[in-house]
Amino acid sequence: MNPSYLLFDVGGTDIKSALSDNEGNLSDIRRVPTRRGTPNPAEALVDQLHTLGTELIAGSTLATPESVGLLVCGIVDEDKGLGVFSANLGWRDAPLRHMTSEAFSLPVGFGHDVSMAGAAELHFGAGATLGSKVNNAVMLVIGTGIAAALFVDGHAVSAGGYAGELGHAAVPGGLKCPCGAHGCLETIGSAGAIAKRYSAASGTQVRGAREVLEAMHAGDPVAKRIWDEAIEAIAFSIAQLCASIAPETIIIGGGLAQAGEALLEPLRRSVRSKLSYHREPLIVPAQLGEDAGLRGAFLKAQEARA
Amino acid sequence: MNPSYLLFDVGGTDIKSALSDNEGNLSDIRRVPTRRGTPNPAEALVDQLHTLGTELIAGSTLATPESVGLLVCGIVDEDKGLGVFSANLGWRDAPLRHMTSEAFSLPVGFGHDVSMAGAAELHFGAGATLGSKVNNAVMLVIGTGIAAALFVDGHAVSAGGYAGELGHAAVPGGLKCPCGAHGCLETIGSAGAIAKRYSAASGTQVRGAREVLEAMHAGDPVAKRIWDEAIEAIAFSIAQLCASIAPETIIIGGGLAQAGEALLEPLRRSVRSKLSYHREPLIVPAQLGEDAGLRGAFLKAQEARA
Repeated sequence: MNPSYLLFDVGGTDIKSALSDNEGNLSDIRRVPTRRGTPNPAEALVDQLHTLGTELIAGSTLATPESVGLLVCGIVDEDKGLGVFSANLGWRDAPLRHMTSEAFSLPVGFGHDVSMAGAAELHFGAGATLGSKVNNAVMLVIGTGIAAALFVDGHAVSAGGYAGELGHAAVPGGLKCPCGAHGCLETIGSAGAIAKRYSAASGTQVRGAREVLEAMHAGDPVAKRIWDEAIEAIAFSIAQLCASIAPETIIIGGGLAQAGEALLEPLRRSVRSKLSYHREPLIVPAQLGEDAGLRGAFLKAQEARA
Repeated sequence: MNPSYLLFDVGGTDIKSALSDNEGNLSDIRRVPTRRGTPNPAEALVDQLHTLGTELIAGSTLATPESVGLLVCGIVDEDKGLGVFSANLGWRDAPLRHMTSEAFSLPVGFGHDVSMAGAAELHFGAGATLGSKVNNAVMLVIGTGIAAALFVDGHAVSAGGYAGELGHAAVPGGLKCPCGAHGCLETIGSAGAIAKRYSAASGTQVRGAREVLEAMHAGDPVAKRIWDEAIEAIAFSIAQLCASIAPETIIIGGGLAQAGEALLEPLRRSVRSKLSYHREPLIVPAQLGEDAGLRGAFLKAQEARA
């Protein structure tokens, strides 16, 4: 029988879980809120994963999983299997790989949610059509916050789990950030910031960046200003990367990427205006959508089995 | 007899040349102006290297060199042996490795001047005392301009030669740059910019950043402002790196590093003030001084022989 894998993508808001076959085809995808505010966040998480996993396996016609793929948010030490730090979920230096392996009595492949969503995009998504152009690539995930997966000379960059925190790099015009720093990209360039800043500036509460885009298309000058400032800030951060690690490809994912060319076209224009002899990157949309994390968890699960 | 190597470090202003033994001990170090403004800059360079090398070998008691180590400035494709582009020296896609190998009938190890000065610092200098702290490191060379060698997860970053161009990343308050972009770090944070901006602001022509530092120590408020703005700009760029590739160590080299703690102490303070949960890097001075490039050329020459 075809081997199967048990997959988890743990974010600050939701846990996505699924089973997959040996080719990474997902089945039984479920999304539930991440349990929060418990005194022992790592134990609570593994408990929750165990319940979810047991239900998934019981309800499935696939073979019993050979291994688990587990991705978590925050600062992650993949080599040591540690959740180093999660501002949202509260653990510090939690041995999540070992704990999950004990819970399921299975090997666990462990990684960072955004890094592995990027790896999945390179493997199954945008990267599959771009060939060697992804040897130096950045997957920028723009949603409530902003994070990135960096690939340099064909290697995923880890730097002990601290790499790719682009949402917390300063940009001109950036604001005071809950993280404690000032001017972070996330305070102006994220989908969350676009909605929040438009609500404050217009007096009209909106639920998301989509409504700001619609207001802009309807001629609202405040919406246009907020949208343009977000793009300018994202372009600033991309231009910084062009001068440091010089990616050939920038893959834009996350909720804001659903804006399509309304985001990408002015973003390309703004990046180009900031470069001189630098190498100008291709800027393309992500292709895997919200399942990128689970596909990345599959890559980790397969690694753990081998 | 101990093998010897012929070494060249080609900058926009000077060519440094030397011989070395098998341990990288340099001898017969010479520095001559780079020939400029010729119609065929690549041919003119190789001619000049041939003359220099022939004289060096004739005057030395070392064995005939086993190989050549050649570093050049600009955008360099190490794999293909090409000088891709040099704004100062004028070549484009010049097969400098092959041309130099033909001229000397010797194998040539070829690299980028700043990248290999960084590799030499890691191998012989600051890195030798820092252990694994240089797996993720940046060597920032601050002189007339600013460039960097990046090391990520134990690998030197190349990105086709486009990596490490930190002098041409934008910073708040940065000015129009001769490169064609706006706001480049080099326009405010380089030794060249410090001298130029102080001369313009004070009406007193100075020859270098050292005189600005002396004026600051003597209580000149204009000198203090220019110096502080330079440090603030350099710190901004370092903080950007902390959010993207998260170096554990920043090694500061180039002429400005001669200021020692007058540079490093406020730089550390300014970087720290910009970080929150990011990993704070050690900021240390380079140890090899102006011979770092030749020591890097030795590493390349040794590679080419092997």
